[in-house]
Amino acid sequence: MQRTEISAYGEFGLINHLTEKFKIENSSTLKGVGDDAAVLNYENKKVLVTTDLLLEGIHFDLVYVPLMHLGYKAAVVNFSDIYAMNGTPKQITVSIGVSKRFSVEDLDQFYDGIKLACEKYGVDLIGGDTSASLTGLAISITCIGEGEEGKIVYRNGAKQTDLICVTGDLGSAYMGLQLLEREKIVFGANDEAQPDFEGRDYILQKQLKPEARKDIIELLNQKGIVPTSMMDISDGLSSELMHICTQSNTGCRVYEDKIPINYQAVVMAEELNMSIVMAALNGGEDYELLFTVSLEDYDKIATTEGIAIVGHMTKPELGLQLVGREGEEIELQAQGWNSLG
Amino acid sequence: MQRTEISAYGEFGLINHLTEKFKIENSSTLKGVGDDAAVLNYENKKVLVTTDLLLEGIHFDLVYVPLMHLGYKAAVVNFSDIYAMNGTPKQITVSIGVSKRFSVEDLDQFYDGIKLACEKYGVDLIGGDTSASLTGLAISITCIGEGEEGKIVYRNGAKQTDLICVTGDLGSAYMGLQLLEREKIVFGANDEAQPDFEGRDYILQKQLKPEARKDIIELLNQKGIVPTSMMDISDGLSSELMHICTQSNTGCRVYEDKIPINYQAVVMAEELNMSIVMAALNGGEDYELLFTVSLEDYDKIATTEGIAIVGHMTKPELGLQLVGREGEEIELQAQGWNSLG
Repeated sequence: MQRTEISAYGEFGLINHLTEKFKIENSSTLKGVGDDAAVLNYENKKVLVTTDLLLEGIHFDLVYVPLMHLGYKAAVVNFSDIYAMNGTPKQITVSIGVSKRFSVEDLDQFYDGIKLACEKYGVDLIGGDTSASLTGLAISITCIGEGEEGKIVYRNGAKQTDLICVTGDLGSAYMGLQLLEREKIVFGANDEAQPDFEGRDYILQKQLKPEARKDIIELLNQKGIVPTSMMDISDGLSSELMHICTQSNTGCRVYEDKIPINYQAVVMAEELNMSIVMAALNGGEDYELLFTVSLEDYDKIATTEGIAIVGHMTKPELGLQLVGREGEEIELQAQGWNSLG
Repeated sequence: MQRTEISAYGEFGLINHLTEKFKIENSSTLKGVGDDAAVLNYENKKVLVTTDLLLEGIHFDLVYVPLMHLGYKAAVVNFSDIYAMNGTPKQITVSIGVSKRFSVEDLDQFYDGIKLACEKYGVDLIGGDTSASLTGLAISITCIGEGEEGKIVYRNGAKQTDLICVTGDLGSAYMGLQLLEREKIVFGANDEAQPDFEGRDYILQKQLKPEARKDIIELLNQKGIVPTSMMDISDGLSSELMHICTQSNTGCRVYEDKIPINYQAVVMAEELNMSIVMAALNGGEDYELLFTVSLEDYDKIATTEGIAIVGHMTKPELGLQLVGREGEEIELQAQGWNSLG
């Protein structure tokens, strides 16, 4: 029998390959595989469903992630997927598989983190289960949200002249991860070493305790702005732009000097001799929002704090271009943070 | 810091402990943790949500479970949870974590099984993802179903004189598992040994390719019977009766000679010198339905093929009693098939 290595596909290629033969049969299924969340249709109410499977050693490292932070983050990244559809998260289910290494107190910490996130975002825990695991911790979370008729935002709605916007800053979570990885190695070599985290609280927080951009969704709503396309930035700006451009059938031009970067991330990148632009483009886990708006919303967006206009959509034949500080054009590569790697 | 072993709690004790501090805040959350599925409330439409996390080595053994069967079963057991609420499964999300041992062809087989189940039960695959795993296969499935206003059946609605009914037969899936385990040991000792599966197709099918009792739910609906309580039998009759009696605040009397047993399961139990009644009470994975109906539905139920009346509910102070073939009474123990063990 033929054997094709899974690495021959990217994550998205693989999920497309595996699911392309499935047909949609039910009238309540409005949108299936291919966006941040699926959309279900019940008279005047749209229901959003997103799910995540997180495995120890692949998606998180308990050497430097406290269990409470892990619980918080695991919940929040699912909320982020619902906000990325312009919806509001309402319920989650949490299932965990745990090896004998974990105590009830460990699980209490994990659930304390989940609870904190649920309270902050107004989400109900409605189900899940616990089972044994042979190795480490496995976490499965499903989040259900609600959206208004006509206001759900997909990845495929961008037009060729739309503005490209991102929230917050990019690359910080990735630089936070690099810092944690470095301190882990230092600690491994000398277990009396104390981690050097001074003045790095922001990038650590972006990595260990990210927030979903509920505030931005509310702000857009107050200002009467409905993005033409949107997704959250979990795999890096390049990869996410590629999704939106492919699904919307557009190209894009993004200006390097417009990409919002945090000062702490810049310092960390310099210290590690890394490119902060590469971190912003290809680092993962920022959980900021990437969205496009129609040109006529320019004034409203330009005056909104926390949102940066980083470029604009183009005709598809122009491709995906990054315009450097000297005006040079570089084709964007989606090297996104790929957990199949 | 205190360390409490997880084994100090049972699975249900643990999930209660972990989730009891969570409050329900959203009006769309009708029912959270504690039944086969959670129930969401959208004008005239009830939405059911259930989720499962399946880990290699804990929940399945790929030595004797073909991947296509595994996909089929993983989907069907989730559908079963929705039917157990008197609902209809409509959508599923499937996420998998896979180690390098697996090829794309392996995953194709797994998804072929999922697809077969989806087609048979009219369910849409709407999402999920794939990621790497350090060890083996992890599967997370969430199923969404729909139920009619006033017809959702919970675990807590049984009355003290209700009849206790089960569908199909019990213990067969467990005896199928024992057969597979035996053949695995024989094969391990002598790899030219051929498995001896003749005349055992039924118990093997119950273990490897179980069906959800969609047919029974449709039959009850046609006959105008709404059970007073219901759940699916995944952990054994004893354990499930305990859930229904606890949540409904009743006791029960179940008659050993009324418990439906398949001939192949009896033969297998004799061969292995095991008690088939223990298998029926405490074996797992039958995915039959356990439900209670009001006494006035007796005639309708008694004439329905595929449903056995195995006993009746009682006052809670009478406890959970199994009445043996000689009329002796034995207190039921929930030794349910517990994957935390």
